[in-house]
Amino acid sequence: MPSSSPHDSLRRRYEMIRAETEALARPLSPEDQSLQSMPDASPTKWHLGHTSWFFERMLLQRDSAYRGFDARFDAIFNSYYLGLGTPMLRAERGLLSRPSARDVLEYRAHVDAAMQSVLDDPAVAGLIELGLQHEQQHQELLLTDIKHAFSRNPLLPAYAPPPPPHQHIAPPLRFIPHDGGRVAVGHAGEDFAFDNERPRHEILLSPFRIASRLITNAEYADFIQDGGYRRPEFWLSDGWALAKSQGWQAPLYWQDDGMHFTLHGLRPRDPAEPVIHVSFYEAAAYAAWAGKRLATEFEWEAAVKDLPVTGQLLDRSVLHPRPARSAADRQFYGDAWEWTRSSYDPYPGFRSFGGAASEYNGKFMVGQLVLRGGSCATPPGHIRASYRNFFPPAARWQFSGIRMAEDA
Amino acid sequence: MPSSSPHDSLRRRYEMIRAETEALARPLSPEDQSLQSMPDASPTKWHLGHTSWFFERMLLQRDSAYRGFDARFDAIFNSYYLGLGTPMLRAERGLLSRPSARDVLEYRAHVDAAMQSVLDDPAVAGLIELGLQHEQQHQELLLTDIKHAFSRNPLLPAYAPPPPPHQHIAPPLRFIPHDGGRVAVGHAGEDFAFDNERPRHEILLSPFRIASRLITNAEYADFIQDGGYRRPEFWLSDGWALAKSQGWQAPLYWQDDGMHFTLHGLRPRDPAEPVIHVSFYEAAAYAAWAGKRLATEFEWEAAVKDLPVTGQLLDRSVLHPRPARSAADRQFYGDAWEWTRSSYDPYPGFRSFGGAASEYNGKFMVGQLVLRGGSCATPPGHIRASYRNFFPPAARWQFSGIRMAEDA
Amino acid sequence: MPSSSPHDSLRRRYEMIRAETEALARPLSPEDQSLQSMPDASPTKWHLGHTSWFFERMLLQRDSAYRGFDARFDAIFNSYYLGLGTPMLRAERGLLSRPSARDVLEYRAHVDAAMQSVLDDPAVAGLIELGLQHEQQHQELLLTDIKHAFSRNPLLPAYAPPPPPHQHIAPPLRFIPHDGGRVAVGHAGEDFAFDNERPRHEILLSPFRIASRLITNAEYADFIQDGGYRRPEFWLSDGWALAKSQGWQAPLYWQDDGMHFTLHGLRPRDPAEPVIHVSFYEAAAYAAWAGKRLATEFEWEAAVKDLPVTGQLLDRSVLHPRPARSAADRQFYGDAWEWTRSSYDPYPGFRSFGGAASEYNGKFMVGQLVLRGGSCATPPGHIRASYRNFFPPAARWQFSGIRMAEDA
Amino acid sequence: MPSSSPHDSLRRRYEMIRAETEALARPLSPEDQSLQSMPDASPTKWHLGHTSWFFERMLLQRDSAYRGFDARFDAIFNSYYLGLGTPMLRAERGLLSRPSARDVLEYRAHVDAAMQSVLDDPAVAGLIELGLQHEQQHQELLLTDIKHAFSRNPLLPAYAPPPPPHQHIAPPLRFIPHDGGRVAVGHAGEDFAFDNERPRHEILLSPFRIASRLITNAEYADFIQDGGYRRPEFWLSDGWALAKSQGWQAPLYWQDDGMHFTLHGLRPRDPAEPVIHVSFYEAAAYAAWAGKRLATEFEWEAAVKDLPVTGQLLDRSVLHPRPARSAADRQFYGDAWEWTRSSYDPYPGFRSFGGAASEYNGKFMVGQLVLRGGSCATPPGHIRASYRNFFPPAARWQFSGIRMAEDA
Ligand SMILES: [Fe+3]
Ligand SMILES: [Fe+3]
Ligand SMILES: [Fe+3]
Ligand SMILES: [Fe+3]
Repeated sequence: MPSSSPHDSLRRRYEMIRAETEALARPLSPEDQSLQSMPDASPTKWHLGHTSWFFERMLLQRDSAYRGFDARFDAIFNSYYLGLGTPMLRAERGLLSRPSARDVLEYRAHVDAAMQSVLDDPAVAGLIELGLQHEQQHQELLLTDIKHAFSRNPLLPAYAPPPPPHQHIAPPLRFIPHDGGRVAVGHAGEDFAFDNERPRHEILLSPFRIASRLITNAEYADFIQDGGYRRPEFWLSDGWALAKSQGWQAPLYWQDDGMHFTLHGLRPRDPAEPVIHVSFYEAAAYAAWAGKRLATEFEWEAAVKDLPVTGQLLDRSVLHPRPARSAADRQFYGDAWEWTRSSYDPYPGFRSFGGAASEYNGKFMVGQLVLRGGSCATPPGHIRASYRNFFPPAARWQFSGIRMAEDA
Repeated sequence: MPSSSPHDSLRRRYEMIRAETEALARPLSPEDQSLQSMPDASPTKWHLGHTSWFFERMLLQRDSAYRGFDARFDAIFNSYYLGLGTPMLRAERGLLSRPSARDVLEYRAHVDAAMQSVLDDPAVAGLIELGLQHEQQHQELLLTDIKHAFSRNPLLPAYAPPPPPHQHIAPPLRFIPHDGGRVAVGHAGEDFAFDNERPRHEILLSPFRIASRLITNAEYADFIQDGGYRRPEFWLSDGWALAKSQGWQAPLYWQDDGMHFTLHGLRPRDPAEPVIHVSFYEAAAYAAWAGKRLATEFEWEAAVKDLPVTGQLLDRSVLHPRPARSAADRQFYGDAWEWTRSSYDPYPGFRSFGGAASEYNGKFMVGQLVLRGGSCATPPGHIRASYRNFFPPAARWQFSGIRMAEDA
Repeated sequence: MPSSSPHDSLRRRYEMIRAETEALARPLSPEDQSLQSMPDASPTKWHLGHTSWFFERMLLQRDSAYRGFDARFDAIFNSYYLGLGTPMLRAERGLLSRPSARDVLEYRAHVDAAMQSVLDDPAVAGLIELGLQHEQQHQELLLTDIKHAFSRNPLLPAYAPPPPPHQHIAPPLRFIPHDGGRVAVGHAGEDFAFDNERPRHEILLSPFRIASRLITNAEYADFIQDGGYRRPEFWLSDGWALAKSQGWQAPLYWQDDGMHFTLHGLRPRDPAEPVIHVSFYEAAAYAAWAGKRLATEFEWEAAVKDLPVTGQLLDRSVLHPRPARSAADRQFYGDAWEWTRSSYDPYPGFRSFGGAASEYNGKFMVGQLVLRGGSCATPPGHIRASYRNFFPPAARWQFSGIRMAEDA
Repeated sequence: MPSSSPHDSLRRRYEMIRAETEALARPLSPEDQSLQSMPDASPTKWHLGHTSWFFERMLLQRDSAYRGFDARFDAIFNSYYLGLGTPMLRAERGLLSRPSARDVLEYRAHVDAAMQSVLDDPAVAGLIELGLQHEQQHQELLLTDIKHAFSRNPLLPAYAPPPPPHQHIAPPLRFIPHDGGRVAVGHAGEDFAFDNERPRHEILLSPFRIASRLITNAEYADFIQDGGYRRPEFWLSDGWALAKSQGWQAPLYWQDDGMHFTLHGLRPRDPAEPVIHVSFYEAAAYAAWAGKRLATEFEWEAAVKDLPVTGQLLDRSVLHPRPARSAADRQFYGDAWEWTRSSYDPYPGFRSFGGAASEYNGKFMVGQLVLRGGSCATPPGHIRASYRNFFPPAARWQFSGIRMAEDA
């Protein structure tokens, strides 16, 4: 694991990121923070605890003098690190009325206090940076998980007040050519990147064209209107079987009446906003219906190569994707994660992080698809061109949208 | 539905019973009160809300001037009354972080206020009594449900401080003869009884002998020690299949180390205390191993005919069964519900309660077994000789124990 | 087990019953005889083998000189006798392409040969009779199981050529009064009866009225037409949940076009014929819709007390229920098994058969309902007033119909 | 679809391949040919029918004068072509006692007769070749499916007599270096290849080393001995969860006593023979334990580039993998399919076959892994360097083995 940015900045980053996680939890009652609406999602307070446990197990416990807050938390807040013990059953995190939300904040404070003495130690700067990047990933999950939980409550609670209005209108969809050829992908520098982004290596790309922006609600509604969910010819076989067995007729959170559920509660769907909460299967079916395909992760990476890493990322007053702001707004970063037509396989020469963090990414490299670019719930500073997010093809509760491409 | 006890007493009963429910919830945090650990169990605050909804729908809404607290609560707090609307999905009650525990108490206060004007109205005394008996049933469920939820938490929280010690030693087990013959069963008088206890009617009993007390932990441990869970010859076929597929080796909440989980947290098992948290299958297998059988519900009712309705019922400082206090202590009432060898079928001439309450009992009369006598979590005044509780044969989370019998 | 009819007759009965089973299998190809369409059903050739295994294990193996046909058949043809070994997985009987249908017939011949020497031995006459009664039960199952299997084949094969036509028209439905009172039920004599029919004992009945015949297809169609499958008020709670989850809209084997699948293939439904292939849930819902209820097993037994045991039983040229032949035709015996409103509980003083046969009936006495009277697939001579058949409330593949009753 | 080999040869190929399928079915009784032991597998006679249906629907029905054999077969023998109708439920193919094995042979003869007039028509040579390649794929499935079915029968039938003995001893395992670099992969020529092998394109490979032969039973036994199935550190997360929930302790068909089930019945495992019937998860775990990894599909293809397409393929007297015959025997072709570390994604510029065959491959390109090289059940002439087989990572019933690699 490479070391991170300068140390004084690391201390400040630690304080800001840890505080941000707590700020994200603050609008939620202790009861809200306990919710787990499906095995894939976790309670807010579990995210708060788990991100602290990560620092404890990856870092603080290297010092034998460290005293833990409560030995029983080790199994509770271990997510899936079988090398570090036996995690409690994932599907039962919602039964953790204890420790209380207050107890978890005390646990965080305990960890933060212990971290003070190592924040300036260059020997562990890499591990601290890993812990912070990890915590940022959980910030996004905290939001998508509470959104899912609230969507199952008949009261349809809002996490946040309505966002400020906007006047954006999606510009016409165009396809931007790329010559392909020999392209370097993956992360190169000394600064932080996950193990799954390395090593940087070259690949060969055929010429292709990539969509100028994300697909909108209006465009996706055309697909539905044209029988998209009734016509198997557009679908991958597993996707079709799942859509039938689950009765899918539209993206997750859509209602028949033109409304959809958001972090602001039930709201009218804006036709110009990017469609989100589609599975890979739906994204691929949409693209097939449109006579295109999804971009591969390397086409995506080649396309963004020279673009600044800017876009609508986590902004607590927005929390929802917005239409492209202009014909020049590519929406590669932020707004919605983009399902790619690439399975989540290891890069040539892939090596997992060493030590306790070895289970971080590598053991999930089968049966998942790569998503690129971050979303409206991704913290600023957390995304980059080489970043590989991954989810199973059926997942719909993330802020996942559609970027099309075609052969040139 | 017959009218109940004198009206002034009804008002007082209303106040006391409603207050008792809230007192039972008081040791629990808002997070605790939201827990649902399996579809059969409900969150504490749902019990608080549902028992209020019951008064609202059975009684208050007969007055068109009544204004509800929140129209959306109707689906949330409807348990299974399909004639009164579409209840929300039972398995998702644990997702109700909203309404909060505080909101539910306000809802209760709203209902209580509206009830003031009808508490002295003899025309609805029967319905009020039904609502109170219903609320008492949910008091017991509140306790068994939170016990189950806490048992799944790695922290094994205690609902209450340890109970006062006792010196009881279970007296020798004897079998008390009964002549059988023509026996009247079911409820006779004008006072309250559930529809499933009526009509009173005569049945014929063969002579039998019934155990002098409940089976103890020590006696049940002998069954286990003798291979009870490994020897199919004692088991009903469905029970054996279930025990194998679930890996049952002992009653629910037993640990290998001599401890068991209780409402007081993890505690050593007292060998003299009645065994509880056994399914009907286990109760019947135990009896077969002992060369006996379970009593039928009518044998039980005949046996208690002349006994006073006393026993160790709901006592917030105990909350657990105790050994028989003397050779004369039959334990018919209280301590543990007693699985009978009687399927829950309608009595001859059975008529459900009329109106909105018609779904109360009758629609569950298939696939369940009758339990008799109440438990340590049954409110005093709630049990009687003709009372028929019922659960599926696999249920283990109630305070259910074993009463044996044999042919004379 | 009581001894059976005179011994010379027993030898003849053995030959006839064994031959009848093989005759029932004869219209079926080896491939047909291997079919298992659900875990509850068994392949034809398994029935042929299992009924032979029963004689082998209950009787022939008492002689240590007996040489088995193939030791490996013991696990294959053991149904559920855990005291006699470890049966192969029930759900995988359809994978038994070997032993072939021909091998099974050889196995039968082997057993028949060995039986010759004991057929006149009065010491085992009771066991032989049990084996024959057992084989007759499997004759009926052989037919209901192949009917189910054929119903899942897109070719909808017919087991038999069309039955001879009839001109019966169902007479008006009447309700016949009975005074109730003290009634003896269960089997009394020395001749054969299953353990579950004993001991004969007295019960008390309230006055009641029982339907003069079975419910017809036309009457059941009225229930459907009136929204029977959409109105929960008629249904037991478990039944409603199951009907919704399974999408039940009509009895098993009914099509929308007025046809239904029979052992004669797809045929028009005759409105006057008794409705069959309904679950207990549907039978009870029908009765509730009609303002009646199902008869209890003791009402049924009291009603048939003085009637001759005649009716349309297994007749290889019919194999389907027929309308009541006249106003005097009660249809108590034959045509269709009648779901009763009685759970399958043990009689007072119940004792299982001894020895290897102890698992025959007793271990199934929970969660099932009693059916009475036999059907068009019940072999003549096999049914009697005290006969208790039993199935889970959801079962629909038997020839099960509806007998209503009401309180007098 | 490119046209195939010369036409006279095509007619002969048709006759030989069609006859070979029937020869493979010949050792099986009609009952054997009806078996379906899991939804993924199909009955032998279904394979016989489906491969004929394929010619009918892809080719014969283009001529409107063609008269089908039985219109009802269309749904029965359609596997998954939703554009061609509604296939019958896949999991119920084992219920097809009708059409009989004999009927299916008549259906084949009907199709063969109709094919005579087109076998020399160059306009459909490509479609004929596709039908033959398709039939060869089903020849292999016929064998793996009957092997699975027989393995579930307590009699453990043998499909074939024991194979001739061999004296092969696996040579030492070495790792053969490859320089990587710019490599062309995929199928190039005009002759037949599946759509998923096209278009040929260049990729970049890092230097690597690839194992000189397949992993043996002895080597895999070392992994088991060393706790392979108990040590999560070697496993992909999904694989570990599945292995635990299924209780995997060894490859499919292995017994504890050193025997394993084969197409020749139960046989001692030869330590030198390649391990087979492992899932991708097990293959990857083995490689991780050995400190290596699986080869990618492109490393594999690069490695075989200049090698002749020879190896131990389908040979009706062997039907099982054999040890490498010498240090020079690479086992790239035949013996066992080799799981690669490559997800089954579309090649850049991928286009499905047109017309009715469009559903052939493309719709399965998610959630599966590529296997390379063919097996002991792959017909000679059917395999090539660019051939991409694919199965879900959990699949174990194919002849699938392990080829390791490492970074250079
Ligand atoms: Fe994490
Ligand atoms: Fe209730
Ligand atoms: Fe049997
Ligand atoms: Fe095919």
